[in-house]
Amino acid sequence: MRTPASEPLGPTDALVVPRFAGVRTFARLPTLEQAGRADVAVLGAPFDGATTFRPGSRFGPAGIREASLLLRPYNEPMDLSPFAESQVVDAGDAPASPVDIEGAHRAIEESAGALHASGARVLGLGGDHSVALPLVRAAAAAYGRLSLLQLDAHTDTWDSYFGAKVTHGTIFRRAAEEGAIDPHHSVQIGLRGSLYAPADLAENAELGFSTLLAREFDAAGVAGAIELALGQLRSPVYVTVDIDVLDPAFAPGTGTPEAGGLSSRELLAILRGLAGAGLDLVGADVVEVSPPYDPAGVTALAAANAAYELVGLLVLSGRS
Amino acid sequence: MRTPASEPLGPTDALVVPRFAGVRTFARLPTLEQAGRADVAVLGAPFDGATTFRPGSRFGPAGIREASLLLRPYNEPMDLSPFAESQVVDAGDAPASPVDIEGAHRAIEESAGALHASGARVLGLGGDHSVALPLVRAAAAAYGRLSLLQLDAHTDTWDSYFGAKVTHGTIFRRAAEEGAIDPHHSVQIGLRGSLYAPADLAENAELGFSTLLAREFDAAGVAGAIELALGQLRSPVYVTVDIDVLDPAFAPGTGTPEAGGLSSRELLAILRGLAGAGLDLVGADVVEVSPPYDPAGVTALAAANAAYELVGLLVLSGRS
Amino acid sequence: MRTPASEPLGPTDALVVPRFAGVRTFARLPTLEQAGRADVAVLGAPFDGATTFRPGSRFGPAGIREASLLLRPYNEPMDLSPFAESQVVDAGDAPASPVDIEGAHRAIEESAGALHASGARVLGLGGDHSVALPLVRAAAAAYGRLSLLQLDAHTDTWDSYFGAKVTHGTIFRRAAEEGAIDPHHSVQIGLRGSLYAPADLAENAELGFSTLLAREFDAAGVAGAIELALGQLRSPVYVTVDIDVLDPAFAPGTGTPEAGGLSSRELLAILRGLAGAGLDLVGADVVEVSPPYDPAGVTALAAANAAYELVGLLVLSGRS
Amino acid sequence: MRTPASEPLGPTDALVVPRFAGVRTFARLPTLEQAGRADVAVLGAPFDGATTFRPGSRFGPAGIREASLLLRPYNEPMDLSPFAESQVVDAGDAPASPVDIEGAHRAIEESAGALHASGARVLGLGGDHSVALPLVRAAAAAYGRLSLLQLDAHTDTWDSYFGAKVTHGTIFRRAAEEGAIDPHHSVQIGLRGSLYAPADLAENAELGFSTLLAREFDAAGVAGAIELALGQLRSPVYVTVDIDVLDPAFAPGTGTPEAGGLSSRELLAILRGLAGAGLDLVGADVVEVSPPYDPAGVTALAAANAAYELVGLLVLSGRS
Amino acid sequence: MRTPASEPLGPTDALVVPRFAGVRTFARLPTLEQAGRADVAVLGAPFDGATTFRPGSRFGPAGIREASLLLRPYNEPMDLSPFAESQVVDAGDAPASPVDIEGAHRAIEESAGALHASGARVLGLGGDHSVALPLVRAAAAAYGRLSLLQLDAHTDTWDSYFGAKVTHGTIFRRAAEEGAIDPHHSVQIGLRGSLYAPADLAENAELGFSTLLAREFDAAGVAGAIELALGQLRSPVYVTVDIDVLDPAFAPGTGTPEAGGLSSRELLAILRGLAGAGLDLVGADVVEVSPPYDPAGVTALAAANAAYELVGLLVLSGRS
Amino acid sequence: MRTPASEPLGPTDALVVPRFAGVRTFARLPTLEQAGRADVAVLGAPFDGATTFRPGSRFGPAGIREASLLLRPYNEPMDLSPFAESQVVDAGDAPASPVDIEGAHRAIEESAGALHASGARVLGLGGDHSVALPLVRAAAAAYGRLSLLQLDAHTDTWDSYFGAKVTHGTIFRRAAEEGAIDPHHSVQIGLRGSLYAPADLAENAELGFSTLLAREFDAAGVAGAIELALGQLRSPVYVTVDIDVLDPAFAPGTGTPEAGGLSSRELLAILRGLAGAGLDLVGADVVEVSPPYDPAGVTALAAANAAYELVGLLVLSGRS
Repeated sequence: MRTPASEPLGPTDALVVPRFAGVRTFARLPTLEQAGRADVAVLGAPFDGATTFRPGSRFGPAGIREASLLLRPYNEPMDLSPFAESQVVDAGDAPASPVDIEGAHRAIEESAGALHASGARVLGLGGDHSVALPLVRAAAAAYGRLSLLQLDAHTDTWDSYFGAKVTHGTIFRRAAEEGAIDPHHSVQIGLRGSLYAPADLAENAELGFSTLLAREFDAAGVAGAIELALGQLRSPVYVTVDIDVLDPAFAPGTGTPEAGGLSSRELLAILRGLAGAGLDLVGADVVEVSPPYDPAGVTALAAANAAYELVGLLVLSGRS
Repeated sequence: MRTPASEPLGPTDALVVPRFAGVRTFARLPTLEQAGRADVAVLGAPFDGATTFRPGSRFGPAGIREASLLLRPYNEPMDLSPFAESQVVDAGDAPASPVDIEGAHRAIEESAGALHASGARVLGLGGDHSVALPLVRAAAAAYGRLSLLQLDAHTDTWDSYFGAKVTHGTIFRRAAEEGAIDPHHSVQIGLRGSLYAPADLAENAELGFSTLLAREFDAAGVAGAIELALGQLRSPVYVTVDIDVLDPAFAPGTGTPEAGGLSSRELLAILRGLAGAGLDLVGADVVEVSPPYDPAGVTALAAANAAYELVGLLVLSGRS
Repeated sequence: MRTPASEPLGPTDALVVPRFAGVRTFARLPTLEQAGRADVAVLGAPFDGATTFRPGSRFGPAGIREASLLLRPYNEPMDLSPFAESQVVDAGDAPASPVDIEGAHRAIEESAGALHASGARVLGLGGDHSVALPLVRAAAAAYGRLSLLQLDAHTDTWDSYFGAKVTHGTIFRRAAEEGAIDPHHSVQIGLRGSLYAPADLAENAELGFSTLLAREFDAAGVAGAIELALGQLRSPVYVTVDIDVLDPAFAPGTGTPEAGGLSSRELLAILRGLAGAGLDLVGADVVEVSPPYDPAGVTALAAANAAYELVGLLVLSGRS
Repeated sequence: MRTPASEPLGPTDALVVPRFAGVRTFARLPTLEQAGRADVAVLGAPFDGATTFRPGSRFGPAGIREASLLLRPYNEPMDLSPFAESQVVDAGDAPASPVDIEGAHRAIEESAGALHASGARVLGLGGDHSVALPLVRAAAAAYGRLSLLQLDAHTDTWDSYFGAKVTHGTIFRRAAEEGAIDPHHSVQIGLRGSLYAPADLAENAELGFSTLLAREFDAAGVAGAIELALGQLRSPVYVTVDIDVLDPAFAPGTGTPEAGGLSSRELLAILRGLAGAGLDLVGADVVEVSPPYDPAGVTALAAANAAYELVGLLVLSGRS
Repeated sequence: MRTPASEPLGPTDALVVPRFAGVRTFARLPTLEQAGRADVAVLGAPFDGATTFRPGSRFGPAGIREASLLLRPYNEPMDLSPFAESQVVDAGDAPASPVDIEGAHRAIEESAGALHASGARVLGLGGDHSVALPLVRAAAAAYGRLSLLQLDAHTDTWDSYFGAKVTHGTIFRRAAEEGAIDPHHSVQIGLRGSLYAPADLAENAELGFSTLLAREFDAAGVAGAIELALGQLRSPVYVTVDIDVLDPAFAPGTGTPEAGGLSSRELLAILRGLAGAGLDLVGADVVEVSPPYDPAGVTALAAANAAYELVGLLVLSGRS
Repeated sequence: MRTPASEPLGPTDALVVPRFAGVRTFARLPTLEQAGRADVAVLGAPFDGATTFRPGSRFGPAGIREASLLLRPYNEPMDLSPFAESQVVDAGDAPASPVDIEGAHRAIEESAGALHASGARVLGLGGDHSVALPLVRAAAAAYGRLSLLQLDAHTDTWDSYFGAKVTHGTIFRRAAEEGAIDPHHSVQIGLRGSLYAPADLAENAELGFSTLLAREFDAAGVAGAIELALGQLRSPVYVTVDIDVLDPAFAPGTGTPEAGGLSSRELLAILRGLAGAGLDLVGADVVEVSPPYDPAGVTALAAANAAYELVGLLVLSGRS
């Protein structure tokens, strides 16, 4: 085990050992066990037991790891070498039972909580969007009520599905009720698709969320989206990326795809737009990647790149 | 059988019965048999016997139905609950023989004609684009000569293929010749791809069609496309969506894909742009979805969403 | 609604209406609603919330229905026209919540129970193997303790997974404990794969099950398998087909595939071997078909054919 | 153009030019144009307009050519170097219109007829099974009434589909009626699957065909199949291989797959069993390979190997 | 063999012979052997032995040929009938050994060199990007130092991988060192993705390349990209299209995909923007299409269309 | 790091932590780093640079690891708990350069050699079959000349491809020439497919190999294959499983598939037949799994099971 004061242990060098070689960790980073400590920890939350349509995101962390093999150590748009500046590790997966929502969420919250307690900022890899609830709870426990940036096709603030209060479509109402997030300083970007009723968006607004619908995005553009986010968010911030914010062409492998979404270029540009704005990002996640519905692997690839930008933001937040 | 005066019978409630449960109908709507009547009827036209390259769109109606499970009852951009306002039904598939173009077209025309005669506006689900010919014939028989909005990579106004006058590439020349459509008030958007000769577009223009090529679309944008459509179209209107109007990234599962097409976001925005313009949409179709070439299901998903917008427009048209 | 005394309403005639046309029901049979009654009812149980590895079998009933389009009305090996002799219907899917194992099982048991109460024998389509528990409960409630024929790679008699007593790997221990099945007159064929410990098979034997391991099958053959089954089973009988009894070449689309399994030809021959033996088959199921892992559709096809043989056996049992 | 007396022009040498390089011809053989003449000609019949379920076999010849790249010049079981002994060529594809069954069949018959007239024995690559009708007609025109060996899941002797007399399920009744084949010296092996009625097999038997059902094959085995074939067939012989004779595990990519079929090993062994028996094989085909349903390419691979054995038999027949 | 003075031999007429029929050549053009001469020659370079991540581009030429079947003879945006104006041929594939980088490159250079020597301009189809090195060498040998337009996600100017100087990521540094290209009049468009270090771009700039990063593209747009290219390029020009310049949604089937890339519409518009600018395009290539990672075929389709635009530019350059 | 005397560190318990969770190692075993020592080490050899047709097996070790998640700790047919009896570890992948056959082979030989030197028996996971050469060299260096059991469709004793002496088709000739294996006590089972010439098998026999062709297997069966193997092999033994020994239905994802192969059940039975025969197995490998050609994952699954049986044999051999 390495001492905390040492240089960060970086990823395997792809100019020496081919990318396709070796046991898969996120971005070929060391495990937590290997590094001994972490400034930023990537934690898998392989749970899809709260999904209402297509399952499969229990294999999301593995899919994102496989796609992350192509990530290199320098983030050019941020002018940042995240793995050299901070100790970034792959903390493995939370041991979430597939047959027990409450138990699985508890396991994820405990795994994330332990990492936060050790001083690491946590990037969760889902799993269905329900895993954001324990991840947000853990971050809020460590940092206080969170300002949420949600990139998503859906509000996920419905009240219940099949009589159940915790599904992948209800979690941010729960998080708001619990006080883990502050909807009045939370922003949702990319919402679209048919709804159940006008009340869906009305209730969401009543909860306090600011929104930029996908159909409003064309006029607002990336710049408008960033402006909205920077205007509403307050530290500490949590960013949740439901990969279905992307159009199905860019992210077919997801639980509830909606036509008419963002491109990968737009998503990455929004995330990069948060850099240097003085926001303290304390946690984040990328969720709803379902490899069995991703025959060409493009969903996992987009998710791995979004995760890489989030790692950059987490490292930058840790600078202060 | 339900009485005409009753409230519309709506789709199965996805908050109670999971979307993946039950026999598939479009948007989980009742069948015509179950509802007893229809204001708007979704009619499958599972015929691909007139396709010149990749077949498979005979499975298009089934593929679109499967993808339509995610559709919810409220159309937010139109502020419309189509299934509550009107009786929308799944009328099943026309019994089109795969080995007899003329016979298949007759069966489709009869099925659509019966629906029109009962007072229903018809949304056809193809099938190859040849099925638009009987669908247009049936609509014109009920409403008179039609103004056509065609979203398509191809003009489909070639004269013949292999000596045959009716293929998926020749049908709008036939419809114009027959007087079922009025090319001088018809608009084609999204045309692109290599052609046989300069005459292809010249003859198309001589027939009377107004066009917005895909390469002109970047400058014109969605707004320009809508402006062109609204400027040229006259009631009664028929909208045909060949899913190959989309780029192959958004719609790989189609018979004759052409690189460089529209995005799903652009297509949906154009369709929504027709709402509230006072046009009387009397029929529509979404065609050329070929599931065997759609491994990630994104084509069917885009088509289901286009169909949903068309249902909305048909319901709005029925308000008067 | 049709009167009980009328001739059975049969499937759509594929010589007139193409197989690929129309809303999908099992074997293109009428729905229960259309037929008004049933001698044999095919009931979907689209639940995969108790699966421990690959999910996706919630789409199993839909996948099997799609594959069943090719089934024709005459079972040549049994010299039986099942749909002409008895009223066979597609009873749709039980409304099983994906996020509540207990609730889902209750919904399945109620749906199956209502069918049994109406006099119908029930063929369940899974869903993960956990759905066999409510299906067996419903059949046992109607007919008394059941003799079970289980075609499966796994015993499914483990005690618990992740502390949970009801998963797709524990259900037949539960059924035995409850008295729904009588293990001493139950037979498991096709068991294989690595195990947790020698106790796995020992405890299974202690429960009373007779077994024919896949590695013993080569010597015993289809004839030996049938002999074992006929020697042990007593009426009333329930047959459960976990599609993973087949080798992954024949059934890749399943939750926990095991190399070295049976061929489709062997499975179908075993099922046919039960005909004419005087056993009263009162219920059956085909489970663990996971379409997202079945790119070529062969798993669903094998399952549809197994289901067809089971329908035949159920019809024959109803003759007396 | 080469002179007839020259050595056969063989395939590209895979020890020098990689198999994946170059324009695809069957087994990397020269084209007819390049070779100038042929003893055995491989002719594509890319037509699927008479298929009643899944289309796509219009891409069958291309798929088989791609899979045939692995074929090497020595047939070890036959101790034969077919390409060195005879001039075997790829004669390209018959120009069959996809929208005209009669016209397409005429084109195929003319292409095959011209080859027969030049002295070449013809191996057709389908295409749906309907293409066997013009291929058989052409062979019968050159050699007289044929004895047919049919390896198939279906009899293809139904009378009509959708009122059409020529579909992929009716052609051998037509061929028998026309006198192109002699059913009394014809054999069908591998028949299985559900049927329309008992009459299906009865009428087939009345036509004169000898059959070995798939369910009878287990007892009879490869030896029994060969014995039946050699006992019934009389020169001149035509062999038609519908790839659906194989189990869907071995041939998922086909129009009407039936569970419970033969393995590739069994099919190849039956074909090899015809060598040396003194039968004069004058034509053959391999049909119903549908690449869009063949994601792993195994169907085309099995078909290419079956075609290779048939080429061997055709070369052996040409020795006399 | 045809005389040089004759009319160009064009592609097979798709209005007569279906696109899916016949042995595949690029755009259904004649082979060099059939045409006897060439103004523009399409040459496959099926080599992927220098790829550092996903292989498979050895099947790229075959994949592009299959996708090119849809290309028609008139290039509408260029108002050009390339196949009528010039003799365009498919020159087959260079016989590149898969197990010898140096030898394979030599074979490609010789094949391309022979075509250049005969007066043909060469369009190469890769293969991994390393094949651009011998293609550029051959063009430079014929025309002198080249101005390079590189559409690519990566600079491909790294120094070495695994100690090897020639891989698909180092070739343009090699070409610059050798003097085959002049980086000071070379332009790279579409660069993106994580890098190894800040030095990656700095060294690339020191070599002399002008760049437009993908993240700069949103502001610059197609017009800005064309302006940059036209401002920097000098005749003779070589254009290399690494298909990974496209976003993975548009080109999943490639060796090292990077999220956030261009759309097909943007790529095609940039290529068309070079027409009429007086640049003398003497060679070009489209590389890194890997069919095994392209389940829906969209990558090959985009590549075939890019190749078609490049053929147009090569024909236009040959006019003078 | 653990002390050598401690109990073996076993796999993660799947009854507690779900199989789909965690960083992938073979059978969820500890890494060599975690265990500190090994009796049996699984070593990836992710190299496919010597393949002559389809590449992709560089991803074979990762694919087999993913499929191995389903392996449980008790081998029932061998009545053996391999992971409890011996320390079995995942030793990661040899750092094999994809662009340098000789260098890659050296890296694999060094990695394997170091493991042998530490007292571990090595199970290699390919990679193309060329990796068996360095693996055999390392085993022979540690144990002396080896008796080889080769389960394979091909002899791999050709002399050269494209002038290269080391490809995946020539390695056992090389190994014989070097004295690493003794062909006179070596056995090849499953050979089939077309050949280049009669000399292929003749020269193979002259080298000394005993063979059981696939076409001879039907008569000999599993028992005959085992008898041949046990009669010829002498300790120390090395077993190489080229997954193409299986029929493409069971193993489509491989470099040079050949129709007519073994089933998984047959392969596993042959491997199990070696247990208890007193042979000292000192090394083994499973090669030629190419995930990009394995859409349903069945190839990797069969390979993982073959690897599991080999681990069992290696553990048994280590008992003495």
